[in-house]
Amino acid sequence: MLYLIGLGLADETDITVKGLDIVKRASRVYLEAYTSILLVEKEKLESFYGRDVILADREMVESSSDEILAGADTSDIAFLVVGDPFGATTHSDLVLRARELNIPTRNIPNASILNAIGATGLQLYNFGQTVSMVFFTETWKPSSFYDRVKENRSIGLHTLILLDIKVKEPTLESLARGKPVYEPPRYMTAAQCASQMLTTEEDRMENVYGSGSLAVAVARLGSNDQKIVAGTLAQISTVDMGKPLHSLILLGNRVHDLEKDFIRNFAVDVHSFDEAWKGLVSKP
Amino acid sequence: MLYLIGLGLADETDITVKGLDIVKRASRVYLEAYTSILLVEKEKLESFYGRDVILADREMVESSSDEILAGADTSDIAFLVVGDPFGATTHSDLVLRARELNIPTRNIPNASILNAIGATGLQLYNFGQTVSMVFFTETWKPSSFYDRVKENRSIGLHTLILLDIKVKEPTLESLARGKPVYEPPRYMTAAQCASQMLTTEEDRMENVYGSGSLAVAVARLGSNDQKIVAGTLAQISTVDMGKPLHSLILLGNRVHDLEKDFIRNFAVDVHSFDEAWKGLVSKP
Repeated sequence: MLYLIGLGLADETDITVKGLDIVKRASRVYLEAYTSILLVEKEKLESFYGRDVILADREMVESSSDEILAGADTSDIAFLVVGDPFGATTHSDLVLRARELNIPTRNIPNASILNAIGATGLQLYNFGQTVSMVFFTETWKPSSFYDRVKENRSIGLHTLILLDIKVKEPTLESLARGKPVYEPPRYMTAAQCASQMLTTEEDRMENVYGSGSLAVAVARLGSNDQKIVAGTLAQISTVDMGKPLHSLILLGNRVHDLEKDFIRNFAVDVHSFDEAWKGLVSKP
Repeated sequence: MLYLIGLGLADETDITVKGLDIVKRASRVYLEAYTSILLVEKEKLESFYGRDVILADREMVESSSDEILAGADTSDIAFLVVGDPFGATTHSDLVLRARELNIPTRNIPNASILNAIGATGLQLYNFGQTVSMVFFTETWKPSSFYDRVKENRSIGLHTLILLDIKVKEPTLESLARGKPVYEPPRYMTAAQCASQMLTTEEDRMENVYGSGSLAVAVARLGSNDQKIVAGTLAQISTVDMGKPLHSLILLGNRVHDLEKDFIRNFAVDVHSFDEAWKGLVSKP
């Protein structure tokens, strides 16, 4: 059996009791470590589980999935995923490959960033489609997220924006030399995301949002150290949310007063929050 | 401290290690038991936790929240919620009340139906807003869900439909007598939901979907006994998904081939699935 086990969002104790039990008895344990990260090191997981964990990078999962699946027809393999196994990043291809090989699979759900943002007090019913934001470069500033945000806002919905992470990316020079050397990991901050959003609005000028639009930044959700900040995009673009991982929510105008009561508590500045809220709800 | 602890979706072992640790040492433990249910009885939870659990019904949470919060300024109170504490049903009002009383709160996230449906293979990025379906009566067939589905489908998105549950509802006669007697619990089935959706389309006639539209029904997600079935609304309206809880997903037409490969495996009938898929993706 291939078990896909969600680890939740923060530390080694966010695994479920059911998941931990499988990890303890599986014949091999893999950790998917390229689409998200826990806030603790692999060594901490290993000492908590009392066993070795094999890091599975993108290359292994995408090109050598049969290595992961080896023996899963007769013994149990655990494949650990930060968050939920089918949350922000699906692992459908691994499951499809297992099906081809007649290997049964089972999914152990856990919290994902897609539901944990409910802790902001914004109602999950009021969210439209989720989008991703990649690191802009001088020459590459993809704006497909902008079209999705536009659709959500046209029907009054909030948008969750998931932020780029770069883990184990080879440097260009090292690739040219044929011997990969990896860049240090990079995690987009909520501030970077807000300012990229404002850059895109300046380019596209379709008035989807502006520097005064209300947003909520979150960091390290589910940890002791969780941080939630509400403010305009201009305010968020300078806010320091601390260590990764961050996400950002752009508010839609179909909002409930209970949502206001809840997030006002996280405002950078209550006065400007109230002004921005008035602007939001007075929209047609 | 007031701890809001998600229990996940299926049984007593879906709690996180972190959550279980708090439950074991809290001074009182409440279980919110009116907006969703676990697939196991309260007694099973109690024996797993090694302690008593107090059932919190709607009346207690909404009118007697201070009873729950009593002593939370000096000791730890655990408030258990099926799924995630801020998932399908938020408990914002309890947290707001705690804030008024200067009681610190902390949230222990877990899987919610809103992310666990990723196990269908449908990508969570492609979902619009979530809607709820209530039990229709002869005289009350609210169709606000239909407007939301229409919005989602207009931009090609899937819609998750959460189904009504009736737990501890007093009978009308008993209310008249002033001494509540409760109806047996009722849980809407995916089949009931699909046929109510078709009734609403017949009434509203805005061509948002039809009997041939593709949907995915899920039951008991995250349990050993999880069931996923893909088919047209007509097919789903007669499918037997077994014991509660059920949910339904109506597909949008902005779909990915990987989603097709995944859900085709769950088709009631592969031939009609392929036909319905063709119909879906050929939409403008």
